[in-house]
Amino acid sequence: MDASSRRSPVPIPAADPELEARLRDAVAAKAKPPGSLGRIEDLAVRLGTIRGSARPAAGKATLLLFAGDHGLCEEGVSAYPQAVTAAMVATFLSGRAAASCFARTVGAEVVVIDAGVAADLSGMAGLVHAKVRAGTRNAAREPALTPAEVEEALARGAAEARRAVRDGADILLVGEMGIGNTASSALLMHRLLPAPLALCIGRGAGHDEAGLARKRAAIEKAAARSAATDPLRVLAEFGGLEIVMMAGAVLGAATERRPVLVDGFIASVAALAAFRLAPEAEASLFFAHRSAEAGHDLLLRTLGAAPLLDLGLRLGEGTGGLLALPLLRAAAAMLAEMATLDEVLAGAPGGG
Amino acid sequence: MDASSRRSPVPIPAADPELEARLRDAVAAKAKPPGSLGRIEDLAVRLGTIRGSARPAAGKATLLLFAGDHGLCEEGVSAYPQAVTAAMVATFLSGRAAASCFARTVGAEVVVIDAGVAADLSGMAGLVHAKVRAGTRNAAREPALTPAEVEEALARGAAEARRAVRDGADILLVGEMGIGNTASSALLMHRLLPAPLALCIGRGAGHDEAGLARKRAAIEKAAARSAATDPLRVLAEFGGLEIVMMAGAVLGAATERRPVLVDGFIASVAALAAFRLAPEAEASLFFAHRSAEAGHDLLLRTLGAAPLLDLGLRLGEGTGGLLALPLLRAAAAMLAEMATLDEVLAGAPGGG
Repeated sequence: MDASSRRSPVPIPAADPELEARLRDAVAAKAKPPGSLGRIEDLAVRLGTIRGSARPAAGKATLLLFAGDHGLCEEGVSAYPQAVTAAMVATFLSGRAAASCFARTVGAEVVVIDAGVAADLSGMAGLVHAKVRAGTRNAAREPALTPAEVEEALARGAAEARRAVRDGADILLVGEMGIGNTASSALLMHRLLPAPLALCIGRGAGHDEAGLARKRAAIEKAAARSAATDPLRVLAEFGGLEIVMMAGAVLGAATERRPVLVDGFIASVAALAAFRLAPEAEASLFFAHRSAEAGHDLLLRTLGAAPLLDLGLRLGEGTGGLLALPLLRAAAAMLAEMATLDEVLAGAPGGG
Repeated sequence: MDASSRRSPVPIPAADPELEARLRDAVAAKAKPPGSLGRIEDLAVRLGTIRGSARPAAGKATLLLFAGDHGLCEEGVSAYPQAVTAAMVATFLSGRAAASCFARTVGAEVVVIDAGVAADLSGMAGLVHAKVRAGTRNAAREPALTPAEVEEALARGAAEARRAVRDGADILLVGEMGIGNTASSALLMHRLLPAPLALCIGRGAGHDEAGLARKRAAIEKAAARSAATDPLRVLAEFGGLEIVMMAGAVLGAATERRPVLVDGFIASVAALAAFRLAPEAEASLFFAHRSAEAGHDLLLRTLGAAPLLDLGLRLGEGTGGLLALPLLRAAAAMLAEMATLDEVLAGAPGGG
């Protein structure tokens, strides 16, 4: 068994090049100057190819919002206390976080998943209880996760994607909440892209110079502890659980032939981990936006990915994905519902 | 009476700087790192300021889609026959144009207005019959419109905006259809921005080199005929009716304190004309996207406008505005519904 099939109970289906060519022709025949819908035309072809359909449905969208805590916080990598992760989980469930507000405006469902919050959330109603452990270990001192914990988090992420698809999702979004998770993401990007560590580190939720120096030192300490480059080992060394679970969700969505809208820096690092485990997952992915977090632009450029939006966002939670969702829906509607130029001209005065 | 009040039966209300400061504070207090929602934060403050409310409604959006024909087409400025304008009006009404499809995905209403189509559309149900004349005169030979026709088109555009607001629109969008209208727009931009004529001319819906040379020659002939720079005279010299009516709609929306999402090159030229008639209208405007049409980037940069999207669109119809609409709605929801950081921390373990 190779790494990809080990992670994907059902193999990721290959795209049909004949369908893709047919979709390109269908877009070219629409009632508009050729190419005049720009990137929406490419989105339409990709959506149809992923779904294996000339009329890909795009109505029901589900944001899988994974929350987890990071042992690296002991080193002072975040400007915010770790308890904010749990507090934000409660805020997602109350519908008053940024992602909740954005989701309502676009009619997306939000599923909040406890991937590894360092607090007992077992009494919280409406939460998906998938906690692998209560926060990762401190990666500056020891591996953040065991290999078994990584496997479990990948499997649970994939299972959440499959469950959302069973519940009717046409489009999946992945987002996250986890105090300290730009630090873990910097380490993962450094090893998995790979890229020089210094270019992967940013201010995250906000740091003054002293805070940023503390964050840098902790990250360098963790990096020095292990030379791992194998994706599974890298995930175990640096965590975190919400990131690994997002990677699993990306793989699960790909096996189910569902498009995935990836949010900002941290979600993109999770997508990178998924590609390294199963390169064919990349075909299902849409990068929603270019984050203002320092490493994101380099990550996107190295992957050759052109994000859909560029709005200076750096919040996470899936907020950027939710803002990009209407572009995918418009593309799907264009493909399925728009008249052809021939149909329009047949109705024109003097037309056939 | 000055030019602005002549065009605006009700003067455009001034923004309240005290409210704007209050809105900035409200956004800063939300449960997120400061500035982490990037441009959405600015949109929220602007929306609240335009509406004069800390909870600006953004649910009901109406696209005013103006159609008109251009006498300049006699000179071969377009790769498409003029009859396509009327055929596309029928396609809008049948719900099968790109704008119709996009509008359904975002739940926007589309109002299609015959501003000056060169065909008898009086039998078309569902169309707003506001035709000032059946196509403009050939601007390469004579003024496209009389001053009275310009006044009538401005007034009808403003009236359509006011009617949409009376019908409950929280956000207005303006878009257009008119074979040949990138040629008229190039002339208007040249005189009203102003900018060198050559930089205002692009391929429009699509031209080979011979077609583009024909378009350039016709535009230069029209420009040579008149030295007008006064906005009303420029509009009369070069038309077209759908452009003048869009300018009127922008002014009408500003008097009604409604945000206006401006589509691509042609709609932006109409917005430019509106600013030149009443500079205070600019405060109500949001430029939806950067069009792939040659002159648009220069127009936006000269106005200091940062468009929301950059997707290589160059179709018109309001398609870019419809794609940007969800960003405004997200901003409004953030302002009205999102928790503050203090509220979140009060609920956190160990919090107050």
